[in-house]
Amino acid sequence: MWRELEPIGRQAGGGYRRFAWTAADAACRAWFRAAAERRGLRYEVDRNGNQWAWAGDPTRAVGVGAAVVTGSHLDSVPDGGGYDGPLGVVSGFAALDELRARGRAGGRPLAVVNFADEEGARFGVSCVGSRLASGLLDPDRARALRDADGVTLAEALADAGHDPRELGPDPGRLAGIHAFVELHVEQGLALARTGHPVGVGSAIWPHGRWRFDFRGEANHAGTTRLADRRDPMLSYATTVLTARKRARLAEALATFGRVEVEPGGVNAVPSLVRAWLDARAPDPDTLATLVADIERAAAERGARDGVAVRVTRESHTGPVAFDQGLRVRLSARLGGAPVLPTGAGHDAGILASARPAPVPTAMLFVRNPTGVSHAPAERAEEADCLAGVAALAEVLEDLLWEHPQGRHNPEEREDPVCR
Amino acid sequence: MWRELEPIGRQAGGGYRRFAWTAADAACRAWFRAAAERRGLRYEVDRNGNQWAWAGDPTRAVGVGAAVVTGSHLDSVPDGGGYDGPLGVVSGFAALDELRARGRAGGRPLAVVNFADEEGARFGVSCVGSRLASGLLDPDRARALRDADGVTLAEALADAGHDPRELGPDPGRLAGIHAFVELHVEQGLALARTGHPVGVGSAIWPHGRWRFDFRGEANHAGTTRLADRRDPMLSYATTVLTARKRARLAEALATFGRVEVEPGGVNAVPSLVRAWLDARAPDPDTLATLVADIERAAAERGARDGVAVRVTRESHTGPVAFDQGLRVRLSARLGGAPVLPTGAGHDAGILASARPAPVPTAMLFVRNPTGVSHAPAERAEEADCLAGVAALAEVLEDLLWEHPQGRHNPEEREDPVCR
Repeated sequence: MWRELEPIGRQAGGGYRRFAWTAADAACRAWFRAAAERRGLRYEVDRNGNQWAWAGDPTRAVGVGAAVVTGSHLDSVPDGGGYDGPLGVVSGFAALDELRARGRAGGRPLAVVNFADEEGARFGVSCVGSRLASGLLDPDRARALRDADGVTLAEALADAGHDPRELGPDPGRLAGIHAFVELHVEQGLALARTGHPVGVGSAIWPHGRWRFDFRGEANHAGTTRLADRRDPMLSYATTVLTARKRARLAEALATFGRVEVEPGGVNAVPSLVRAWLDARAPDPDTLATLVADIERAAAERGARDGVAVRVTRESHTGPVAFDQGLRVRLSARLGGAPVLPTGAGHDAGILASARPAPVPTAMLFVRNPTGVSHAPAERAEEADCLAGVAALAEVLEDLLWEHPQGRHNPEEREDPVCR
Repeated sequence: MWRELEPIGRQAGGGYRRFAWTAADAACRAWFRAAAERRGLRYEVDRNGNQWAWAGDPTRAVGVGAAVVTGSHLDSVPDGGGYDGPLGVVSGFAALDELRARGRAGGRPLAVVNFADEEGARFGVSCVGSRLASGLLDPDRARALRDADGVTLAEALADAGHDPRELGPDPGRLAGIHAFVELHVEQGLALARTGHPVGVGSAIWPHGRWRFDFRGEANHAGTTRLADRRDPMLSYATTVLTARKRARLAEALATFGRVEVEPGGVNAVPSLVRAWLDARAPDPDTLATLVADIERAAAERGARDGVAVRVTRESHTGPVAFDQGLRVRLSARLGGAPVLPTGAGHDAGILASARPAPVPTAMLFVRNPTGVSHAPAERAEEADCLAGVAALAEVLEDLLWEHPQGRHNPEEREDPVCR
């Protein structure tokens, strides 16, 4: 499976560009469908463009206990690595193969899922497919999102053959899920430091994206006296340095990874610098204070530079604690695998925050020897990937055969909406 | 004339995008040719793509005294104003009309010129047409210049119907020029402060462009600890603030107006920040010290951030003093017009530095009430534009009838190459 996916969207530098609803994404999605059909799984695309491959009949979920779901996403950040996302999808199919070989598939229905547009690299909002399904993203807002070329998500969906009018919450589908387990390459060095190939996720830090618009006045770089300038690049530079300093003091994370400059001429003082802050912290108060401190520093420097600063929150995800029962069981089942928090958002985090009712979710992390992610150096050793598949198979087996003939227990869910 | 040019390449925000060898540039060049032909002028394009419109026979230049030339350029910076460049070309034609109406055209041959690619907005090197003609830009280097889409100048020229193999020095053509006078909108507030509508240029500050490549390591913005990062955005931000501070202390100018970030994802620590420094100073030593100070600060911060910094000088123009005799005469002829230096590069500055022999050059500046340039707010009042045309006509008349029947005086030129 890995060999088939490997060349799709790969760039000369070794990084991947598999942006949502592009040709590279379509190739990944075609691969998913073929992988499902080769296994005789029932293939479907939900209203939000997420792909599902079912072993067993999902419509049985209500009567005989809801389904077990695993999977991740196939899209990538710009020049991202090959593991972030695809490792979870490929491991899902591999774990199913393993369970079938052992005669342990069955019990509850099992699905492998590919969530659409997890990275948000093209339209600026992450986890679009799972957010829409979970009622955490307004479908009108989603349809109006634009990429750098001005193409809306609605247009991109229509071009890819998906009706954008279908977008919206999918509570019935989510209510039919007994547990969702997402396997993911680790995006740091914690497992490498512990010596374990596989770990269990505890929580996702609250995080978000804020767009900073620094507006000054375009002018000639060769003739405008410094004192006569309103140069937004200065306000931006101060904000970058402040963000780093405040994040360090708060033991949090702050990053400016995307910048646009207008007019962008070498010999022109900019009229506009637009930059995006990615900020994350262990708890919501720390995050709020961090962002407020950065905003204040930007406004203060802007006032000195004659530059107007406007800050827009583009996305925000509160703290997510994965299902505690699942987490404890998984760690024990895997021989005391370490339990780790992460600063990264994942579809699992979205499902764990779904409205009206959260989906019980867990994450497994596979060791990354470089600690690098979202870059070509992202890695996982083959032995660790196989350990990940084995761990996932064990966990899924447990969940599949957990009182599978019993009725779905309404007390497990705040608002069980039947499919 | 102004009305015809006005809509070409104009954007919704009122700024212009007339980049060299694009469709908008072709429309400007077609306008130039039509303006020449309507006046019965002899139209030609030189080997470097510069357009010439001749009143009188340029081949007479050697026998009867070399030609008088006026003009400027028609291309623009991104979202630039409508006056920078076109005002000089339009005023050249208008001054010729004025001289003909008064029966004072004649004497020496007179040309209006449109120099190609003055702003360098597309290929990153300014004054390409005049630099090539003046032997200040290697034609192989010019042909290999690339725009943001990877198109080379050679390809762009060929697409525009100009043979890129023709590029190269044009000493014979330049040797045939008795004087070049470029009229230009002022790009600061000096004339507005003096109350004069027209001024005379004294000198152009030495200036240049330096590309800074800050190379770090791409990583996930949500999972990579600050201490594990090699974030080039931090080194860049420090460099921006240092450049401003050093320029202020040196009474010089330093600007970062263009930045590119790779991979450019909101949730990715950048692997590369590439930014361009535009620096100018009253004298070469000050400029060299300024740039060296900025480079040192970039390298020092880069070392702290684990970021490699490479600086490449992309263009450099030494100080240019316009012909002193011409300058004094022009100022006197215009009733004591103020004499001003400028930090901006111009084709006139290139011609004044031409190899093997400089062309005697002068500049006239027309008052700009906003002082803004390279932006839509760039302005000149109609009355001031008319005063500019009148001043240009007077100056050209003087030059055209200055011993026009005498032989070209070899002592005026270091290396008179005949056309």
